[in-house]
Amino acid sequence: MSVNAETIEPGTGRVRLTFAPDGGEVRVPAGTTVFDGASWNGIAIDSTCGGHGTCKKCKVRITDGDVPVDTLDPRAFSPDELRGGWRLACRAIATHDLAVEVPPLQTRPKAALVGVGRHVILRPSVQKRYLELKEPSLEDQASDMERVVHAVEDFELRVELGAARGIGRTLRSSDFKVTAVICDDVLIDVEPGDTTERRHAIAFDLGTTTVVATLLDLATGQPLAVRSMLNRQQPFGADVISRVSATMMDPDALEMLQQRAHETMNGLAGEVCEEAGLSPAEVYEIVVCGNVTMMQLALGIDPEPLGMSPFIITARRLPPAVASDFGVRVHPRAPAAVFPALGAYVGGDIVAGMLATGLTRDRRVRLFIDVGTNSEIALGSSERVVATAAPAGPAFEAAQIRCGMRAAEGAIEGVAISGEEMTLEVIGDAAPVGMCGSGLVDAVAQLVSAGLLDHSGRFIPDEDAAELHPQLSTRLVKVGEERVFVLAWRGDDPANAIYLSQRDVRELQFAKASIATGWRILIKELGLDEDEITQVLLAGSFGSYLSPASAVRIGLVPKLALPRIISAGNVAGEGAKMAALSLRERAAADAILDEVEYVELSGRADFNDMFMDELAFPG
Amino acid sequence: MSVNAETIEPGTGRVRLTFAPDGGEVRVPAGTTVFDGASWNGIAIDSTCGGHGTCKKCKVRITDGDVPVDTLDPRAFSPDELRGGWRLACRAIATHDLAVEVPPLQTRPKAALVGVGRHVILRPSVQKRYLELKEPSLEDQASDMERVVHAVEDFELRVELGAARGIGRTLRSSDFKVTAVICDDVLIDVEPGDTTERRHAIAFDLGTTTVVATLLDLATGQPLAVRSMLNRQQPFGADVISRVSATMMDPDALEMLQQRAHETMNGLAGEVCEEAGLSPAEVYEIVVCGNVTMMQLALGIDPEPLGMSPFIITARRLPPAVASDFGVRVHPRAPAAVFPALGAYVGGDIVAGMLATGLTRDRRVRLFIDVGTNSEIALGSSERVVATAAPAGPAFEAAQIRCGMRAAEGAIEGVAISGEEMTLEVIGDAAPVGMCGSGLVDAVAQLVSAGLLDHSGRFIPDEDAAELHPQLSTRLVKVGEERVFVLAWRGDDPANAIYLSQRDVRELQFAKASIATGWRILIKELGLDEDEITQVLLAGSFGSYLSPASAVRIGLVPKLALPRIISAGNVAGEGAKMAALSLRERAAADAILDEVEYVELSGRADFNDMFMDELAFPG
Repeated sequence: MSVNAETIEPGTGRVRLTFAPDGGEVRVPAGTTVFDGASWNGIAIDSTCGGHGTCKKCKVRITDGDVPVDTLDPRAFSPDELRGGWRLACRAIATHDLAVEVPPLQTRPKAALVGVGRHVILRPSVQKRYLELKEPSLEDQASDMERVVHAVEDFELRVELGAARGIGRTLRSSDFKVTAVICDDVLIDVEPGDTTERRHAIAFDLGTTTVVATLLDLATGQPLAVRSMLNRQQPFGADVISRVSATMMDPDALEMLQQRAHETMNGLAGEVCEEAGLSPAEVYEIVVCGNVTMMQLALGIDPEPLGMSPFIITARRLPPAVASDFGVRVHPRAPAAVFPALGAYVGGDIVAGMLATGLTRDRRVRLFIDVGTNSEIALGSSERVVATAAPAGPAFEAAQIRCGMRAAEGAIEGVAISGEEMTLEVIGDAAPVGMCGSGLVDAVAQLVSAGLLDHSGRFIPDEDAAELHPQLSTRLVKVGEERVFVLAWRGDDPANAIYLSQRDVRELQFAKASIATGWRILIKELGLDEDEITQVLLAGSFGSYLSPASAVRIGLVPKLALPRIISAGNVAGEGAKMAALSLRERAAADAILDEVEYVELSGRADFNDMFMDELAFPG
Repeated sequence: MSVNAETIEPGTGRVRLTFAPDGGEVRVPAGTTVFDGASWNGIAIDSTCGGHGTCKKCKVRITDGDVPVDTLDPRAFSPDELRGGWRLACRAIATHDLAVEVPPLQTRPKAALVGVGRHVILRPSVQKRYLELKEPSLEDQASDMERVVHAVEDFELRVELGAARGIGRTLRSSDFKVTAVICDDVLIDVEPGDTTERRHAIAFDLGTTTVVATLLDLATGQPLAVRSMLNRQQPFGADVISRVSATMMDPDALEMLQQRAHETMNGLAGEVCEEAGLSPAEVYEIVVCGNVTMMQLALGIDPEPLGMSPFIITARRLPPAVASDFGVRVHPRAPAAVFPALGAYVGGDIVAGMLATGLTRDRRVRLFIDVGTNSEIALGSSERVVATAAPAGPAFEAAQIRCGMRAAEGAIEGVAISGEEMTLEVIGDAAPVGMCGSGLVDAVAQLVSAGLLDHSGRFIPDEDAAELHPQLSTRLVKVGEERVFVLAWRGDDPANAIYLSQRDVRELQFAKASIATGWRILIKELGLDEDEITQVLLAGSFGSYLSPASAVRIGLVPKLALPRIISAGNVAGEGAKMAALSLRERAAADAILDEVEYVELSGRADFNDMFMDELAFPG
């Protein structure tokens, strides 16, 4: 007896997989299965079970390198085939470089375009199988459950107790013609007749401010309805820290916050189902991404350790949950797939964003920034990715800016200065009533460009302003003791106008310095130069609306050619949809935890110096 | 690369395992692991994880025969050791005969004596680990859950969501000195401080008539309290068929029956905890055995298909359940381990009984009979076991016998006739008020011996009786049109007496003929002679009280020397305790489903002829 005796040490270092005949080559962490390595890199291998080792369709041949025979392999291959290197890809663990031959696909997979231009092969966790079963007799007394489970040939099913409750009646009322409803490898229900075409999931982006729900048709990969709603936790504070604080001051607050999250999510679930005209019971899974605080509050997990140094999360990968743990009343046994988190301030929303942008799969070096009170930053390529969180302060919170408001009707979202002319972009067909985050950044950027704000962030003296901009300088006035720049007058009193105050500028400087310090430290970590970055992805509800030119002007992002600065949109929501549509993408999201290194800023000696340097606006 | 290329086909045929140095030899189904094969046969192999492949302590050397290298093996052995045949016993699947060398035990396992003289090595599913954890810092931001999970070295833990909710607070309130509570391989709680000595389970025998709960100290294996209670489902009917019928006639009955079972079980749980002076929250698991109807009703599973041909069970192995699924309020995340069932009328109670008696592990050919309205019968040895269910009719139900009653105070439980003298054994220090099942069997056996009942089961004519037994024959009178034999007068009117009626005798004949036909068919199935049976085990609350002599006299059991007919007691309850004390015994119970063949009587052509032959009493 001779054996492959190489010690398996998953998770150490990276190995190279080369795939024939398409010639693809990928580097994956040692310990990854060949199946995952291929899937994450868009190389399709036959599989109906999604890598569970049950369908035995993911046959590949290892042509160079050794992979030990797994106990499942002898069920799929003859002795000669095993000797010839044939293995089940989902069981073949790559501990060193391998060459892999992939047979032609037996079935052409359906696909959908989601994320940032990502082509997702449809393989949702939710599966249905229509079964016409033989009726039991005294000669064939197999149990109802075994009759169903054995008929589903491509899964080794586990069964939910709840699915057992009505199965006897369902089988007998439908002449033993039923549809098995499967999530992952769990039988969650048996429905009368053929319902295979009807399967749905809801992807939730559980934001601190806004919650978005997308109802997906899993048979086609298409969204059927999208709705958003303000998170009903708002009365407990606008940002995560104030909500964590609420739980520390009031022992009942955690339960109330959990309740509010549940109301929000369940309300949205009802709305999207109603819009699509289907029963919530036909939604068999929910996928949820959100920052760590939102996830812990929604699940009733004590968030206190998140709120104070050293910022400890309860679990990077949360234990299995069901939709009802989020208060979402869809199918009673629908599971809830939850995105994992890298750390207290780089949560599942960012992991979802990295998935949607393919940050860890792309050869290009890219910078991902989700701009907000807490800004998450990730930098890297398929070779290596590092991530951090930067506490940007309240500049992007409407409440902390004198004339700040959310990006709603009447908000100034864009400012342009040309000579003595100033043009405002206002949301909706309305008179301006305030200024949202992108308007703030634009206003500051334009005033710096116009010379009315100096590089230190101070409004220049009145006499200098009058000389430089005779018209515009009339807008530079005082409200109380503070100098402000009026964007829109409402009557003669500057106190009634929409303006940018000196303190607002300071808040923004603080925020952008924090973010810029973050990505500069990441650049340093990777040993890169700033000009090696090929793309900046601005994510999140705020980042997506930023003007790239203004972001560069104030130094919030590296100085790249403007077309390389991309508003990536709601990438967290896109990532959640991808995970609903594909188990492989879900596995890829999980792998991000092992692929991305978290860099903690608060402990670093170089942070303060760099931060001080970044406070000024670029020359 | 050379591999072991033998095709693995678990469950086909049996293979022989010989163990060195103790020389033990066992036959197990192909596909069994070496670990299970050894454990089931009392050969101890080191293990702390109970065969989950996580502790990597169950090292053995295969000295003859091939076992492929499992993916886990290279983590436990050097290449040289692998080549030398070393394998993890829990991963080594026996597909053909093997010789296995077992190293001396590192730790001497604790054991308890339960079941029918069975020595159970303590390895409960419920485990605790005391952990003194390093406090987190900015340099060590591992999540709370990972900190705990990684510290438990001998398990690859899964985590219950509920265990996550308070972990942050628990860790911080106890200076990171906590106890992990583990069931199987799931972390169900984290408790402050060191609570390792306090772990308990409750074993339930969920009978149709009586429910018994035993509170076990899992640290010592000792019972701390035992309580029994009538099943509160009684108002819905005395036997399983009447309870199934109730659900068919009233759509609300299932929920009510479920509720009654929950009240009974939770009531008992409260009582045993109170008796032992411990909080129900310190009970981390319940184990439940019961017949299929009881299990399905308790779990709210529609029982209708059990009640009509072809008698289909929902699942032989029920999906995972928790204590709260049985309405038992102990630790909120305590699992419920449920015994599997062979078929609709050979349920988990009988599997538990087979476990407790070691029926499938013993070399002797033994006959197991649980006497009741539905009587379960199993016959065989470690070579092969067959089982069946015999519908014995209502003879053993107090309500169907004219003067029948439960085995309670005042019940005639024994009858002896010597010459003209009749002696009664009555339960309690009381005047007789009725006759329980064992009294019925005794009365009939004694009257047959005395010649007052003929072999066809008819009372002999009055004139013959007067001649044969001048004294006793005065007890042979009429109540209405029916002849009866008075056991105890109450006044002069026979209608007020405690008596045995002609119809009672007929009911008993029907019952014993059904049971005897059952075991005769099983003897035929195994190709045995009646005298090859070395022992009869009478089980269940009724069987245990039967007089062996009377059972032989009426032909209920084969004609063996009386010391070979054993009252085995509440073997179902013993089996439940064994499963609570040992994961290995639990696995053995599960294996019984694959080891024991179920023989359905209702479809058999030879049943009616044999049944007619058995109606008479033996000559």
